[in-house]
Amino acid sequence: MVAPLHPRQRLLMGPGPSTVPARILKAISSPTLGHLDPQYIGFMDETCEMIRQVYRTSNALSFPVSGTGMAGMETIMVNLVEPGDEAIVMVNGVFGGRMKDVLSRCGARVHSVEVPWGESFSRQHFADAVKEHPNAKLLAVVHAETSTGALQDLSEVGDIVHRAGMLLAVDAVTSIGGHELRVDDWGIDAIYSGTQKCLSCPPGLSPVSFSPRAIEVIEARKSPVQSWYLDVTMLKNYYTGAGGRAYHHTAPINMVYALREALSIVLEEGLDERVERHRQMHQRLRQGLESLGLKYIPEHSLHTLNCVSVPEGIDEAAVRKRLLDEYDIEIGGGLGVFAGKAWRIGLMGESASEKNILTLLAALEQCLQS
Amino acid sequence: MVAPLHPRQRLLMGPGPSTVPARILKAISSPTLGHLDPQYIGFMDETCEMIRQVYRTSNALSFPVSGTGMAGMETIMVNLVEPGDEAIVMVNGVFGGRMKDVLSRCGARVHSVEVPWGESFSRQHFADAVKEHPNAKLLAVVHAETSTGALQDLSEVGDIVHRAGMLLAVDAVTSIGGHELRVDDWGIDAIYSGTQKCLSCPPGLSPVSFSPRAIEVIEARKSPVQSWYLDVTMLKNYYTGAGGRAYHHTAPINMVYALREALSIVLEEGLDERVERHRQMHQRLRQGLESLGLKYIPEHSLHTLNCVSVPEGIDEAAVRKRLLDEYDIEIGGGLGVFAGKAWRIGLMGESASEKNILTLLAALEQCLQS
Repeated sequence: MVAPLHPRQRLLMGPGPSTVPARILKAISSPTLGHLDPQYIGFMDETCEMIRQVYRTSNALSFPVSGTGMAGMETIMVNLVEPGDEAIVMVNGVFGGRMKDVLSRCGARVHSVEVPWGESFSRQHFADAVKEHPNAKLLAVVHAETSTGALQDLSEVGDIVHRAGMLLAVDAVTSIGGHELRVDDWGIDAIYSGTQKCLSCPPGLSPVSFSPRAIEVIEARKSPVQSWYLDVTMLKNYYTGAGGRAYHHTAPINMVYALREALSIVLEEGLDERVERHRQMHQRLRQGLESLGLKYIPEHSLHTLNCVSVPEGIDEAAVRKRLLDEYDIEIGGGLGVFAGKAWRIGLMGESASEKNILTLLAALEQCLQS
Repeated sequence: MVAPLHPRQRLLMGPGPSTVPARILKAISSPTLGHLDPQYIGFMDETCEMIRQVYRTSNALSFPVSGTGMAGMETIMVNLVEPGDEAIVMVNGVFGGRMKDVLSRCGARVHSVEVPWGESFSRQHFADAVKEHPNAKLLAVVHAETSTGALQDLSEVGDIVHRAGMLLAVDAVTSIGGHELRVDDWGIDAIYSGTQKCLSCPPGLSPVSFSPRAIEVIEARKSPVQSWYLDVTMLKNYYTGAGGRAYHHTAPINMVYALREALSIVLEEGLDERVERHRQMHQRLRQGLESLGLKYIPEHSLHTLNCVSVPEGIDEAAVRKRLLDEYDIEIGGGLGVFAGKAWRIGLMGESASEKNILTLLAALEQCLQS
């Protein structure tokens, strides 16, 4: 027999999940409906419509994949790529590396373009990449690298990629709901994200969206999609209602309730207002961290994830353990080449508030002094 | 702006999800923890241990896949099979057919053994199958066919399959927590199930388990697992703690809270007692349905899912719509070859009670009379 479930009320300021508002926890505990119940279909349609609004897209095929952000990444890749296809991946951290791995498991020939971790890519990097690999079918890039805290400007990338006749695939896990993100204006053909970062929803779903151009490519496939679970040629019947609401798999009903509530909260605040709040909170935190002598690693820092070097002589894991044990605050350690060398402090959704920043800075100061 | 979320309180007596008890809805709304938080790791370890108990196995690699039952099916297949491998699939309904589809997307040469929908396989079917396809790597079979309501006896299958040097893979989506299920005693090497049937948990996770023999096969693979998200060679580090709790993907924290509570409830009731309750409730329902003139389709009916023919002259969809609209009761329609011809009435977990059966029978009688 296990003890009753009483998770501590942590302040989640790591790389995700972020703190989940009470409204969303209430929504997730609403009575479960059947996945073909007309009332549920209505909630799901509203959820898909709000995904479109948050992505600023009119893409019909926009829906929450029944898995976490990494399932979203895999959904994009397995549907767009066939064995033997060429793909370009921009790698400047863990998640670029993972896109490479996922693409090669799809049988793609992957060309990676690398800059040191923490850096972002210039316009020229993209122009050179498509010139060097003219037969690539797609170019994949991370908008917000959760492992390094680097923001990637995407505003001109779509044009470069499209002029070369390729598709643009984007990881927006740590930017959705926190950074400016314009799927249609920026010419993004396929995008995935997570629920547990700036949407402040529990983890478990991955909002994705495919452009009409991406759908044409999928419809012209010669081989079946290697994943049955993530095959959008079947999923689209359930999510868009094309050809009836055919049963594919049982949707994660209560998680969709949570996402619907999370997206409502985002739209009630307003997309521009929410982006501006994340910007201001980042500036406030940055000031505080720099006053404590901490240095940011990336030149183009995300607002939503702040990656700083651990000062010489400090045991980084001990500091995180103390923050968690004594103050109930979670921050993240470094990942990949930054393991043991960096802290990653999230300012995501509900967690991005003045009060939380003051609490964290005060606690961190205590931990660094003694 | 969307309206506040107020799902109706349905009585869920279809093929799943089943009605979720208040205790589980309370658990799912507990504060979200980080996926590497020591407290969460503790909850997860308890969840994996309870999965072992409910499956009656000592398999170290037993954990909830971060997706629904179909993701569990895919997890089993992508890990066990490599391109060119041969596999035998026993097909007597939709889910056998899906295993075939998933296996062929893994590049397997699939041999299917078919009996008419609604029937089960005899000992001889298995013996003949392994004799006819001696080079197969695994044999896959559905324990409880959700599409037909047929129960498959598995007590002697493991021996037959193992003597032929193959692995036994089983779909237990509609049997876990409702029918007798003995992974170790029956020699099952890989098994998957869903949370939303006889565990009465919301959909979104798939408990799986791999035998040491299955792990040996996975470790001897020559090619990488085609799915990154479902690759147990990486997932095992997070779920068993082997080689540290490495980050793979962000676990669906709140869904795991719900599953932990659901498994607690199952074990508090007792596995044998729960199986007996499902048996008794099935007999009670069967009596009632037969009194209404309805005939069961399968000879070996599941206790957890009751599949009956729709009488001549009855509009089956209209009856289901009326049950839903007037009585807030959900039952299922037919699937595949039984579409339009059958009703599927679930007696799963929380939904399998005398009170619910009386309510359903009374409402169904009304709908059939007028």
